[in-house]
Amino acid sequence: MSSPIITLTTDYGTNDHLVGVLKGVILKIQPDAQIVDINHSVLPYDVLDGALSIGSAYRYFPGRTVHVVVVDPGVGTPRKPIIVAANNQYFVGPDNGVMSVIYARETDAIVRRVTAEHYFQRPISPTFHGRDIFAPVAAWLTKNWQLESFGETISDYAQFAVPKPKAQTGGLKGAILRVDRFGNLMTNFTLEDLPEPMRNPGAIQMTVAGKPVKQFVETFAQGAANEPVAVLGSSGYIEIACNKGDAARTLGATRGAEVLLKLS
Amino acid sequence: MSSPIITLTTDYGTNDHLVGVLKGVILKIQPDAQIVDINHSVLPYDVLDGALSIGSAYRYFPGRTVHVVVVDPGVGTPRKPIIVAANNQYFVGPDNGVMSVIYARETDAIVRRVTAEHYFQRPISPTFHGRDIFAPVAAWLTKNWQLESFGETISDYAQFAVPKPKAQTGGLKGAILRVDRFGNLMTNFTLEDLPEPMRNPGAIQMTVAGKPVKQFVETFAQGAANEPVAVLGSSGYIEIACNKGDAARTLGATRGAEVLLKLS
Amino acid sequence: MSSPIITLTTDYGTNDHLVGVLKGVILKIQPDAQIVDINHSVLPYDVLDGALSIGSAYRYFPGRTVHVVVVDPGVGTPRKPIIVAANNQYFVGPDNGVMSVIYARETDAIVRRVTAEHYFQRPISPTFHGRDIFAPVAAWLTKNWQLESFGETISDYAQFAVPKPKAQTGGLKGAILRVDRFGNLMTNFTLEDLPEPMRNPGAIQMTVAGKPVKQFVETFAQGAANEPVAVLGSSGYIEIACNKGDAARTLGATRGAEVLLKLS
Repeated sequence: MSSPIITLTTDYGTNDHLVGVLKGVILKIQPDAQIVDINHSVLPYDVLDGALSIGSAYRYFPGRTVHVVVVDPGVGTPRKPIIVAANNQYFVGPDNGVMSVIYARETDAIVRRVTAEHYFQRPISPTFHGRDIFAPVAAWLTKNWQLESFGETISDYAQFAVPKPKAQTGGLKGAILRVDRFGNLMTNFTLEDLPEPMRNPGAIQMTVAGKPVKQFVETFAQGAANEPVAVLGSSGYIEIACNKGDAARTLGATRGAEVLLKLS
Repeated sequence: MSSPIITLTTDYGTNDHLVGVLKGVILKIQPDAQIVDINHSVLPYDVLDGALSIGSAYRYFPGRTVHVVVVDPGVGTPRKPIIVAANNQYFVGPDNGVMSVIYARETDAIVRRVTAEHYFQRPISPTFHGRDIFAPVAAWLTKNWQLESFGETISDYAQFAVPKPKAQTGGLKGAILRVDRFGNLMTNFTLEDLPEPMRNPGAIQMTVAGKPVKQFVETFAQGAANEPVAVLGSSGYIEIACNKGDAARTLGATRGAEVLLKLS
Repeated sequence: MSSPIITLTTDYGTNDHLVGVLKGVILKIQPDAQIVDINHSVLPYDVLDGALSIGSAYRYFPGRTVHVVVVDPGVGTPRKPIIVAANNQYFVGPDNGVMSVIYARETDAIVRRVTAEHYFQRPISPTFHGRDIFAPVAAWLTKNWQLESFGETISDYAQFAVPKPKAQTGGLKGAILRVDRFGNLMTNFTLEDLPEPMRNPGAIQMTVAGKPVKQFVETFAQGAANEPVAVLGSSGYIEIACNKGDAARTLGATRGAEVLLKLS
């Protein structure tokens, strides 16, 4: 009987006490919790960025992990708290689409609206539901594992599609979804978006923010210095990187930049 | 018998190994500790900012939690290490006022000067008492829970008052205490500072850094885009925020900016 | 029987989910792990900075701690994963010199090349060996403590020397190795690099980035405002600091800046 694992994914940042407070609330209810930070640097208010962040991480955690996901521009408004059960894991957060990647990947996802307010912490601040609703619900879930005690299942939950590359004359048009610390640019192209013969390393014809990317390689170190190359990233998306360099700076590209792939 | 909880609040930042070293020192003494970061981004050397940070967080932790609070511009000088017992919790840090919010809120606070140097780690670096004094004292406290073995109680500890809004012709004058990741501005006004009729949402007459704030609302999402509004923040202070925006940028205001409230 | 401790030192930053994923992988194999972040802000691709970071921290951890150290510009190329046993601790990472400070300080270091690929997680991403190789190897090590099951010992491992100050006419020439959050500048001078009479506080003749540093003091608070002073830092290197100020800004110095010490 190991400690229950509760993870945290938020846009709170780490410049103040907010994340620490979530942990205190959890430990007060569940002193045996093993609490793991997944990411607190989700772009502020950005539900898509939050969905991608938890979506890239949850599968690496053990069964029964409870993931708290709080990117919540509508905090204090009538949008509901939910618990999602999927892939033998649990996800607690607001019903605003932040669980969309879970829904898209896990066909067994079951969503419950949390209505059992006795699990909440009082008084409920209208600006900090992470502390007063989501963290306590996650902690109580690891105490009783009684999903049905939190509320009824629903089917009208909020969901959006992660934007996919679109066909256009002679190719595909996509976008940069995020930039990491190394300046690597994560595109929204997966291998499945490419025609079969282009799925292996070799020459490609791609432009990112209008500048050419000519090689699809296996790992960063195969590119020449300052040469942006495409690699299949660890999250399943194609990334643009520079060997020991910063592709974002080299290409002058940032989140949302246009990615064109020529199919010919 | 759950693991003892030790929290950390410092101005060390997270760009190097300092916080990791504190954790190693703690685990060497108390391998069962559950260590929780509250905040390592206290403004460098800023004892008030540290006092506000721990003051906003400790009440959310379970009884018997030991909080290490290290904002210590006088490290290596004769200011003493202390242990504060208050609210069934413990606080370890330098006697420089960083515990002032605890003293102000908890009437049962008892302060001890730590003189039992056998709890310190040798050699003591004159520049890193977090590692050599405060972390080991906290860890040893969770081993024996013998407060009296650390030193005598004192009454001449350092304490300052968090600056409060002051009356001036026609109103109250306060200040911005901190800015969070979303650009929300925390003022030093609490509800108690306002006359009774102004404590509920509605129109207000406030200026922040010379610019007007006209609405006191319940939650961020009730403001119009780019309209700075006042909300009662989760720490009990009134905050200025912009719905999905950045109030600090919108108002051109930062820490220390003047806040005027018209009472009429 | 306390929880096994696994620490993490990487250049991944904390702006995305990468570190969280390492923790998930570890907990899936070893649910009882106590995971400690030492530093995720190692300068990107900078093996020397990584070596200094783990080198400054490991000795403060208990025996049997397993340290994962991933600064790995050659990820996906033939450089090998290794496990180093030294000082009754373990270090897992790439064989690219990032363990050099351990080798220099611990004469009992034994290095093994990890060839037992059944400990790896499949599929192995060529861009994320932290997730697929180093984290799982560390976790499995805490399950069986059978070093020999991971691979053979080797003696041709990669190693470099931390640059030391060099003699030049009238003195010693060194460099700034790193800058911390307070703007303190860590030089590559240790006490042993100084002639015996200069090892105690007093006047010195030093220039950093061409500007004078005149006092060697015991702790930060002994300097005058905006006066850069030398202190013996907590990692054993001499640091340049300003009392409640920022020496890096005051001196216009950064990593790599020249440090000259006049011996006369």
